[in-house]
Amino acid sequence: MPTQDRAIRTRRTILEAAARVFESRGYRAATISEILAAAGVTKGALYFHFESKEALALGVRGEQDRKLTVPARAVKVQEFVDAMALHAHLLRTDPMVRAGARLTLDQRAEDPDRAAVFLRRQQAGERLLRLAERQGELLPHVDPAGTARVATGAFAGVQAMSEATTGYQDLPCQVTALLRHLLPNVVVPAVLVCVDLAETRGPSVHAEIVGAPRESAPADFRPGP
Amino acid sequence: MPTQDRAIRTRRTILEAAARVFESRGYRAATISEILAAAGVTKGALYFHFESKEALALGVRGEQDRKLTVPARAVKVQEFVDAMALHAHLLRTDPMVRAGARLTLDQRAEDPDRAAVFLRRQQAGERLLRLAERQGELLPHVDPAGTARVATGAFAGVQAMSEATTGYQDLPCQVTALLRHLLPNVVVPAVLVCVDLAETRGPSVHAEIVGAPRESAPADFRPGP
Repeated sequence: MPTQDRAIRTRRTILEAAARVFESRGYRAATISEILAAAGVTKGALYFHFESKEALALGVRGEQDRKLTVPARAVKVQEFVDAMALHAHLLRTDPMVRAGARLTLDQRAEDPDRAAVFLRRQQAGERLLRLAERQGELLPHVDPAGTARVATGAFAGVQAMSEATTGYQDLPCQVTALLRHLLPNVVVPAVLVCVDLAETRGPSVHAEIVGAPRESAPADFRPGP
Repeated sequence: MPTQDRAIRTRRTILEAAARVFESRGYRAATISEILAAAGVTKGALYFHFESKEALALGVRGEQDRKLTVPARAVKVQEFVDAMALHAHLLRTDPMVRAGARLTLDQRAEDPDRAAVFLRRQQAGERLLRLAERQGELLPHVDPAGTARVATGAFAGVQAMSEATTGYQDLPCQVTALLRHLLPNVVVPAVLVCVDLAETRGPSVHAEIVGAPRESAPADFRPGP
């Protein structure tokens, strides 16, 4: 394996270990020693890539942001919905994304990036809603910045409640419910009827990104005899 | 001071100290010793009232729930709004309520009551929305349980984002924004126009509860010459 590939692989191994430790212990309680043990790499290798616990948290956040990127859509409201649907799906399936959520919601976690994550997500939502506005997808009274802020906060809480009450099992259903409450007051009806808000949207967007074939039918569906 | 009054006062002192310690340190990191030191009471007094850290957390939660009770209103949607507005106001002004929020949002805090708090709040919202439904205040498609769940989750996230980004400074404004997004899709227009969603609603409901006179006019308002 060429040196650069090995370095990329080691970096990923370390970040995956850090995500597991942050998720199970929280940012403040987590130690570099625990992350070292979980990653199974040398201290030298870890410090080559990350100089501190803070750098590890930023690295986990960076990976999370990369994984949460959705394909561009002609209908910008659909892209806005896809970002939430994919996030909900990855919270259920990806420890790196779950660790990011825990870092963000853990109050007084002494993680200096906590406010920045909320604001970055709000800005990403606002950017999409401004494009949607330009394309005539939004109702005339909508303020894209205000709606993006409400949606960002509301999503964070819906995921926290889903985590606490069902271990994320009902998250896709709850995100659909949130969107069904918010969007009729934001999006023009002619656009809203074309937007896919279904609970299956997250897995479907994820399959598209990783290039895997989507399940064509549920396991218990048998066409023909 | 009669013995019973003294016991009630000691219990309150202990809970206020526990709230401060839980808020600054988190449930898991907080210790009984720290709470003892913060309360300035004897170990015997503390264990007379609370047998464990868990009992202290439940006590803080009980105090929080008591403080979040709003007066009954003829329009049940207003009562639903008042509960959120009062909660937002007390998060800014009352350490006991802030500690409760931290206990609820701290993921993997090993606090067994975390899910129960979300569910209790959802049930309280559902109860009000069912009364509102019976009075014809809700749009025909609304499912009170589903809307109460979305509102409970969304409120928790809006408060977490406000805490992280502004130290709760913009919370009343954000709760109003959340309600303005949710309610037009839930409440019949003829009722919605009569509901007070203003940012000043929280302080006003609180003043009503504690019996303090409300400010009759802003300081810079001078009627007449």
